[in-house]
Amino acid sequence: MPVGTLGTVKGMLPETLEQVGAQIILANTYHLYLRPGHDLVREIGGLHRFMNWDRPILTDSGGFQVFSLGDLRKITEEGVHFQSHLDGSRHFLTPELSIDIQQALGADILMAFDECIPYPSSKAYVADSSDMSARWAQRSKQAHDREDGSALFGIVQGGMFPDLREKSAADLLEIGFDGYALGGLSVGEGAEVMYEVMDYTLPLLPDDQPRYVMGVGTPENLVEGVGRGVDMFDCVMPTRNARNGLLFTTFGKIGIKQARYLRDDGPIDPECSCYVCSNYCRAYLRHLYRSNEVLASVLNTHHNLHYYLNLMQEMRTAIEAGRFSDFRGEFYRKRQ
Amino acid sequence: MPVGTLGTVKGMLPETLEQVGAQIILANTYHLYLRPGHDLVREIGGLHRFMNWDRPILTDSGGFQVFSLGDLRKITEEGVHFQSHLDGSRHFLTPELSIDIQQALGADILMAFDECIPYPSSKAYVADSSDMSARWAQRSKQAHDREDGSALFGIVQGGMFPDLREKSAADLLEIGFDGYALGGLSVGEGAEVMYEVMDYTLPLLPDDQPRYVMGVGTPENLVEGVGRGVDMFDCVMPTRNARNGLLFTTFGKIGIKQARYLRDDGPIDPECSCYVCSNYCRAYLRHLYRSNEVLASVLNTHHNLHYYLNLMQEMRTAIEAGRFSDFRGEFYRKRQ
Repeated sequence: MPVGTLGTVKGMLPETLEQVGAQIILANTYHLYLRPGHDLVREIGGLHRFMNWDRPILTDSGGFQVFSLGDLRKITEEGVHFQSHLDGSRHFLTPELSIDIQQALGADILMAFDECIPYPSSKAYVADSSDMSARWAQRSKQAHDREDGSALFGIVQGGMFPDLREKSAADLLEIGFDGYALGGLSVGEGAEVMYEVMDYTLPLLPDDQPRYVMGVGTPENLVEGVGRGVDMFDCVMPTRNARNGLLFTTFGKIGIKQARYLRDDGPIDPECSCYVCSNYCRAYLRHLYRSNEVLASVLNTHHNLHYYLNLMQEMRTAIEAGRFSDFRGEFYRKRQ
Repeated sequence: MPVGTLGTVKGMLPETLEQVGAQIILANTYHLYLRPGHDLVREIGGLHRFMNWDRPILTDSGGFQVFSLGDLRKITEEGVHFQSHLDGSRHFLTPELSIDIQQALGADILMAFDECIPYPSSKAYVADSSDMSARWAQRSKQAHDREDGSALFGIVQGGMFPDLREKSAADLLEIGFDGYALGGLSVGEGAEVMYEVMDYTLPLLPDDQPRYVMGVGTPENLVEGVGRGVDMFDCVMPTRNARNGLLFTTFGKIGIKQARYLRDDGPIDPECSCYVCSNYCRAYLRHLYRSNEVLASVLNTHHNLHYYLNLMQEMRTAIEAGRFSDFRGEFYRKRQ
C-alpha cells in the first residue's frame, strides 16, 4: 500500500496510482485528525471524495505516530495524552476516538488502536503493553460500527518474544477480527530478527484472512515476507526515497543525482515497463532532481511505486504458477 | 505559451500540457545553457526528446535573463559578458552563441538576440540600444541555419517612444523574419502604457505573420492584446501564481489558502471544465496548499494553465464567429 499521509500520496494523482496498479492506499489517522481534521473530512463526504480516490483506503490507528512523539505523550489505561507536533495543542486519543476518526474518514479497513512498543524493551514492559493493547483491541471492536461494511484488523504485539507474540495473537483471535497485522516491527530490530518474528507469528494467524506487516519495507523485506505468508505491507520507502532521488531497479537502488548519470540517455531500469522508464532518460531525471523541480518528485515517485507494486504483482503471479522459489532466486541473482 | 524554464513546465507532465491545450511551450535559453548545458541536450537528441515533448518549442534568446543580472553583466557591441547566477562562472553571450544554443536545444521558433531595455530609460539610451539590437538581429539571422525548418522571430524594441518603435520595426522588417515580437514590455511601465505601445506598434507589423508580445501577462492583458491583434504570449503568471496558491477564475483571482475556503466543497471555478475543477474541491486544495504538498503545485498549475489556454481558445472562437467585442464585454462583466 502506498502511503498517503495527509490525504495524498505525495506527488501522485489518483489516476496515476491506478495506472501503477495500486489497489489500496494507507492514510494516517493522526495526521488527518490534526490537519485538516476528521470532522471536516466527514463533512465533505469522507476521504475518498476529499482526495478523489475510488479504491479502498486503510487507515492506521494513529498509535504509531502518537507513540513516536516521545516526551509529548503520556500513556494511561484509558488512552494516550499527547501534544500536536504542529502547534503543541493537547489531545487525548483513545481506542474509541481512533475508531471514530477512522470512520469519519470513511476507511474501508480500520486498524485497532494499540501501543507500538519501542525496541528494545524489557519483557515485563512488552507483556504489560501487549495486554493493554489487547484490551484496547476489544474496545476498538466495540466502537467499530460494522454497518458501513468496513473491516477492522487487529494488531499482534509481543515484541521480539515468541511466547508474548503467541499470547497476543491468541487474545486477538478470541476477540475476532477481519484481518491481522504484525505490529512493532521495522523499529530497529534488524531484518533477521524481523524474519524470525514473522516465522513464529504468522503461522498463528488464520491463512484465510489477510496477514499484514506494518511499516515494512525494502524490496527484500517484501520478498521475504511474502515467502513467509504475508499478504499486505505499507511503507513510505518507495515514495520518500523517490523524493530524495533514490530509485529502485531490478538490479538494486540508484542515486539519480550521481555524476555518472550526467549523460546517461538510458531509462532508470532497463527491465521496467513504467511510463517514466518508457519516456525519460536518467540524464533528464538527474537534471530535474538537481534543479529541485516538482517534476522530479512526480516522476521518481511514479517509477518507485510502479517498481514496488509490480514486484508484488510478479510475486502473486509466481505464487499462482507455483514458482515462487524460482522467482525469489532470480530476484536475488539480478541484484548481485 | 506555458513557460518551461529548465526543460519542464513546473509540475506538469507533457501529457497534461496537451490535455489543457498547450500547442507550444517556451523554454529559456539562458537557464538551459547553464544547466544542464546545451551540448548535453544536443547530445541526448534535443530538448523535445530530453523532456518528452512532441509539440513545438519556442526558445527565448537568453537576453532577458542576462540583462536582469544587473551588476553581473556588461554589454558591448560584440555581445554580453555575464556571470552565472548559479556559480559565478564567467560567460560571453553573443547573437551567434544564442542562436547556436537555441539550435542545439532544437527549438522550432528561435528568437533573435536583443537587449531588453530597462524602464524608464532616456530616449538616447533607447535609441542606441534599439539600433544595436537591430544589428544583433541581423547577426542572429545570419547565424540561423534554416535547414532544420525552424523559424526565427525578430524583436521590436524602441521603449515607450513611438518613433523609436517605428524605427526598430522598420529595421527588422528590412532584415525579414518569420514573425515579430514586441519586447521591452511588462517591465514596470503599467498596463495603459503597454496598451499604447501595442496600439502604435502592432499596425507596423505584417498581419499575415505571427505577432508576439513577450512576458505578458494577466488575463486582462491577454484580452486587450488579442483585441489589438496579438497572436502569441508567454508568461510565468499562471504557473508561478499556481505554486503560490493564486488561482484564476472566470470571476477573478482567488487565494486558496484563505480561511474562507476551509469548508468549501465547491470547485475553484464553477464555470471551469478542467480536470481539477471536475474532481477536487477548494477545501481539499486549501488543505494541500497549507500542508505544502507536491500535489498542490501539480493541481493548481493544471487549473491555471487550463484557465489561460481556455481563455485563448475562447478568444479564437469569438474572433472566428465575429463576436470578439461581445466576448470582451462579458469577460469584464463576470469579473466585476
